[in-house]
Amino acid sequence: MDPAGLLSGIGDDRLLDVERELDAYFADAIARAADHGPGFARLWASLAEATAGGKRFRPRLVCVAHDALGGSRGRDAAVVGAAFELLHTALIVHDDVIDRDHVRRGAPNIAGAYGASARQAGADDATADHAGLSAAVIAGDLALAGAHRILDRTSLDSAMRERIHGLLDEAVFTAAAGELADLEYAIGVAVPRLDDVIEMEHLKTAVYSFEAPLAAGAVLADATEAQVEALRAFGREVGIAYQVVDDILGVFGDAAKTGKTVLGDLREGKRTVLIAAASDRDGWADASAGFGDPDLDEAGAERIRQHLLASGALGVARELALVHAERGMAALDHLPTAVREALSPIAASVLGRVR
Amino acid sequence: MDPAGLLSGIGDDRLLDVERELDAYFADAIARAADHGPGFARLWASLAEATAGGKRFRPRLVCVAHDALGGSRGRDAAVVGAAFELLHTALIVHDDVIDRDHVRRGAPNIAGAYGASARQAGADDATADHAGLSAAVIAGDLALAGAHRILDRTSLDSAMRERIHGLLDEAVFTAAAGELADLEYAIGVAVPRLDDVIEMEHLKTAVYSFEAPLAAGAVLADATEAQVEALRAFGREVGIAYQVVDDILGVFGDAAKTGKTVLGDLREGKRTVLIAAASDRDGWADASAGFGDPDLDEAGAERIRQHLLASGALGVARELALVHAERGMAALDHLPTAVREALSPIAASVLGRVR
Repeated sequence: MDPAGLLSGIGDDRLLDVERELDAYFADAIARAADHGPGFARLWASLAEATAGGKRFRPRLVCVAHDALGGSRGRDAAVVGAAFELLHTALIVHDDVIDRDHVRRGAPNIAGAYGASARQAGADDATADHAGLSAAVIAGDLALAGAHRILDRTSLDSAMRERIHGLLDEAVFTAAAGELADLEYAIGVAVPRLDDVIEMEHLKTAVYSFEAPLAAGAVLADATEAQVEALRAFGREVGIAYQVVDDILGVFGDAAKTGKTVLGDLREGKRTVLIAAASDRDGWADASAGFGDPDLDEAGAERIRQHLLASGALGVARELALVHAERGMAALDHLPTAVREALSPIAASVLGRVR
Repeated sequence: MDPAGLLSGIGDDRLLDVERELDAYFADAIARAADHGPGFARLWASLAEATAGGKRFRPRLVCVAHDALGGSRGRDAAVVGAAFELLHTALIVHDDVIDRDHVRRGAPNIAGAYGASARQAGADDATADHAGLSAAVIAGDLALAGAHRILDRTSLDSAMRERIHGLLDEAVFTAAAGELADLEYAIGVAVPRLDDVIEMEHLKTAVYSFEAPLAAGAVLADATEAQVEALRAFGREVGIAYQVVDDILGVFGDAAKTGKTVLGDLREGKRTVLIAAASDRDGWADASAGFGDPDLDEAGAERIRQHLLASGALGVARELALVHAERGMAALDHLPTAVREALSPIAASVLGRVR
């Protein structure tokens, strides 16, 4: 997920700080990599490119939480934000391997670019694809290690640093649990119910994208445990709401606005909240003809959409998004006004997308 | 590489300490994983299994260096040794993905086991293989993060801990550089000369398997910088010698002793030291017929072996192993007697394998 627009304006004043840290980190890594040959420097440059141009969603959350709580570790918050961005790069680079994607944001991703080089060097298609995948596995490992290593750029004392390492580790641990569940559902070794899908999305995305960055920002601001927990709860609920909305827009969205085809999830047979809600209800066995068929056409997709609407599955998903976003809002109640003012627009924006 | 026999007897007295740390780490991780469902606990159990039964080569080196230098952080050395073992697991799990191996030590590896589950659940072969590969990508990420996280079990102060994190990071960085070079040579985007192959093997294996564990043991023993450097030099040289011997035994070895087919490297078209030495010499164009052919038979392999012998390539490789092992020995000269006595058998053992 790439929550474009969700944070428009929020944390804009800290974007340059984050970019500066990422740029300095990659410049240093590319220089060190060059000692081991031009190929390795090129891989690092690909990783820098894979990290460039994002919305910096997670760094913004770290900085906004820190700043709104009146923290005094502004620069360190930017570095920790950059660490979460590297973690995000690691996860999407490896997720692209798992999803066999060769393109991201319209350009070849690392697997795509290295596959093309191998093809140019004379490799057959299968060998070239595997070479691309292999380069992406290596690159993701480097980004994962980098998420910890970039903390060398902070001036945090050791106790604080250990807490941040711990939050990054927890984020990797839960994201891996979510990835595995997603994989098991995709290959059919388990069929998820509605709660399972919500839990999977929570683990796979909400923790590392919302909960952990907000908790890190709060920890850096020397917040109380109760405040850290409140921010976590906000992140968890809004993160789940965001994912549910993403599932809805993946089928019912406006491709022109989301930049994402509204056939993809249905063709893939993705076990989203919508599908889990529908498959519990009457009529799904008939209505699901074409679901998971890579050749599903727009007419077939429209038939599935009509069923999702008529069976009440769309209504269930919308309601879920609202409930979780409202719970997120409620979690902010006992936090300082500055924090409520800084974060409530995020929940409002999620709600706005589903209404 | 798995240097079976290279360390027979060395560090045996510390093996139980290392096992205890690994067992406790995995027991804790599996328990935490179970909170996210039985599938995730199962993945962690697979990772524990992938880590079990090794020779604990790297942990032995950490402990032997620490103990021989008179260090007083015995238990922490065992934990740091366990961290290097987890790093090794991460690298072999991802390396198996890159090499498309589904078997390790005669049993299905993580990719093999998850592929089999997917097949049982009704997936076709391509889908099942990819599911296996995906599970291995996720598992390797967890082991990589685990190599850092297990340091929570130490009682090291923060400065020492940062140094150990740094050594682990350096090990990942160089191993990735070596993996990438290996990949580039395998797909033919670059053709390596003898020096390139030695450098690749140094990066891919010698640093994380020899240099970094020895350096970590020395650092934990509060050794001087000169001592740390001497141990690094020993590790580098012996590590390279070990890899060169491994290349030789991969073609000329006794399969019954090495447990490894002597056709594999030739069928794969692996750019080893032997091949790099031969391909610089007359006659390789003719002699290399069948090199890289997955159907190469024993008669064809024997023809290549004869050429490697007659052209002098085998002699060059043997000489290289000797020179590097002797340089390793020389690096021990100014270290305390206890260290020389503890480590020189390793170099001697490498030499013994090539003679």
